[in-house]
Amino acid sequence: MYISQISAYIPENVVSNQYFEQINGLTEDWIVERTGIRERRKLSENENTNTLAIKAVEKLVEQRAFCPDLIVGGTYTPYDTIHTLAHSVQNYLNISDIPVLSISTACSSFLNAMEVVEGYFASNKATNALVVLADHNTFFSNDEDKVAGHLWGDGAVAMLVSKEKPIHKAMRVLGIRTGGAGNIGKAKEGVFLRTYGEGFKMPFGKDVFLNACQYMAKATKDLLSLHQYDIDEVDFFVPHQANLRITKNVAETLGLPFEKVLSNIEYLGNTGCAGSAIALCEHFERFENQNMIAVTVFGGGYSYGSMLLRVEI
Amino acid sequence: MYISQISAYIPENVVSNQYFEQINGLTEDWIVERTGIRERRKLSENENTNTLAIKAVEKLVEQRAFCPDLIVGGTYTPYDTIHTLAHSVQNYLNISDIPVLSISTACSSFLNAMEVVEGYFASNKATNALVVLADHNTFFSNDEDKVAGHLWGDGAVAMLVSKEKPIHKAMRVLGIRTGGAGNIGKAKEGVFLRTYGEGFKMPFGKDVFLNACQYMAKATKDLLSLHQYDIDEVDFFVPHQANLRITKNVAETLGLPFEKVLSNIEYLGNTGCAGSAIALCEHFERFENQNMIAVTVFGGGYSYGSMLLRVEI
Repeated sequence: MYISQISAYIPENVVSNQYFEQINGLTEDWIVERTGIRERRKLSENENTNTLAIKAVEKLVEQRAFCPDLIVGGTYTPYDTIHTLAHSVQNYLNISDIPVLSISTACSSFLNAMEVVEGYFASNKATNALVVLADHNTFFSNDEDKVAGHLWGDGAVAMLVSKEKPIHKAMRVLGIRTGGAGNIGKAKEGVFLRTYGEGFKMPFGKDVFLNACQYMAKATKDLLSLHQYDIDEVDFFVPHQANLRITKNVAETLGLPFEKVLSNIEYLGNTGCAGSAIALCEHFERFENQNMIAVTVFGGGYSYGSMLLRVEI
Repeated sequence: MYISQISAYIPENVVSNQYFEQINGLTEDWIVERTGIRERRKLSENENTNTLAIKAVEKLVEQRAFCPDLIVGGTYTPYDTIHTLAHSVQNYLNISDIPVLSISTACSSFLNAMEVVEGYFASNKATNALVVLADHNTFFSNDEDKVAGHLWGDGAVAMLVSKEKPIHKAMRVLGIRTGGAGNIGKAKEGVFLRTYGEGFKMPFGKDVFLNACQYMAKATKDLLSLHQYDIDEVDFFVPHQANLRITKNVAETLGLPFEKVLSNIEYLGNTGCAGSAIALCEHFERFENQNMIAVTVFGGGYSYGSMLLRVEI
C-alpha cells in the first residue's frame, strides 16, 4: 500500500511564548529549553475538529481528484463523538455507502489508522482509503496550566492511501507495527483528556517523557529488525512531535544524526496525532526516489507504533 | 472468524419512567407508546465508561481464560479520549505489546469494531481479538430533556473473537458490511454528542427515525442478498436497540415475524453501541446449532451495518 497523496492544514493564528509569559509567567527561555517550542497555531473560535479536518481534505482535493472507498478519521479531541470526524469528511465529500470510522489511540492514531486501512485492504473491502487526522488541542488545554498549557497546537492532515502503486510519486508502506502500552507505568493518568470537564491534565509528565523515549526507540529498532534493515539505511526519521527533547533523546538512542530528523514542534507545538504526518507532508517534495523514512509515534494512554516508508517516483 | 465468548454487564440501578414524570412531566404511557421503554439502567456516580467496560471483561474472564492479541474498544461516550476504553481494558488484563485501539461510529460501533478485527485477521496481525463495547449514556444525557432524556441507558459487552473455530459453541461470522451515511439527511445534526458542553441533543429525531428504519432494512436485505440467503432463513434478528417502534418497523419491512426479533430496549433503554451485542449475549444459551442470526445497526451521524452469524456447536 502507498501514501499516494498528502496535504496538511495549519491554522493562521500564531500563539507565541510571550503570550504564556503574560498568562502564567513561563518565560520564552524556559519553554524553549524544556520543549523546543517557540510558537504554536490556534484554531479560530468558530471552527472545530471537524471543520479543521475538512480544511485538510479541501487541500487534498485541490491537488488531485480522488474517490475513496473507505474513510478513517483519527482524533482524541472530538468535536462530536456521533457525527465523528470521519463522518463529517464523508459529509463534505458527499460520497455514499462506504465504510467510515473514527479511531483514537491518542497521539499514536496516525499509525493505528494506517493499520486499520491495511486490514480493510487485506480483507478486500477497500482499495483507496482517505485517512484524516486532526486535533483541536487548544480547545481542551488550559493556558494557565504551567505544566502543559504551552505544549499544544492545532493541525490536521489528509492522506490518500491506495492499495496499488499510483502513477505519480508516492510513499510505499514497507511495514507497520503498533502496540498498546495501557498497562505500563502511569498510562492511566500520566496524561489524560476528560473532554467534558477537566480537559487536558498531565500530572505525571516525567513518566510520559521516559516511556515516550523508551518506546519510540524500541518500536523503531524492532520494525527495522523485523524487515531486516539497518538504522543507517533510514534517510529520514519522523517521530511524534511531542517535545524536542524527546525527539533528540530518541535520535541519540538510535544513533541517528539529527539532520535526518524531521521536526516541526518548534513552530507548531504538539499537534497531536497529526504532527508526524504533517512533517511528512512538509518534506514530501524533497524526498528522493528510494529514500527510506521511519515514522514512529507514542501516545498518552499509552500506545506506540512504527512505520517504514519507501519513496517511489 | 467466530464470536467465541460473550458477556454483558448492566448496572444495578434501575431508572423507571415514573422518575421522568417527576422530572419533566413525561408519563409512563407516553414514553412506552413512543419508545417501548419501561425502564433503563444507570451507572453509579463513582463509575465511568472505562470501569463499565472492565466490568463486562471481568465477566468474560470468569467464563473462561483467554489471551487476546488485539483489543478493539467501541464507545461514543468516552471517559478519557487518551487512556481510551481499549487501553483501560489492556490495563486491567495487564497484557503488553498487542495492538489496542478504540473506535466510534456511534451506535454502529459494534459492527465497525468487528470489521476492524476482520481486517487484522486478514493481514495476519491477530488471531484472537477482544472486542469491548460500552456506553455511559446517562452521563451525557439531560434528564429534563423531553425530546431524548428518557431514551438512554448504560451497558457494556465484551466478546472474544477468534480467527479459528473454538472447541465450544460459538457464532461464526458469515459476513459483515458497514457503511457511513454521514452525507444523508440530517446526519450532521439529527442527533449529536458534544461531550464538553451540550451533551446529547436530538433536534431532528424524525430524520433519525426515518433513516434508521430505511437503512437497517436495506443493510439486512443487501447482506442477505450478497450471501444468497433468504429472509426466511434468518432465525433471529438483532437490531440496534434504539426504539421499539423502529425495531417493529424494520421487522415489518423485512417481513420478519416479531418472535424472531431479540429486543431489550423495554428494560434497558438505548444502551448505545453495546445494545445489540447485549441482546446476543442474553439469548446465547437458547441459540441452537446452525441457527442464523442477522445483526443490523444504525448510528447517529449517520452510519449503518449488518452482520450474519451462524451458530456452531
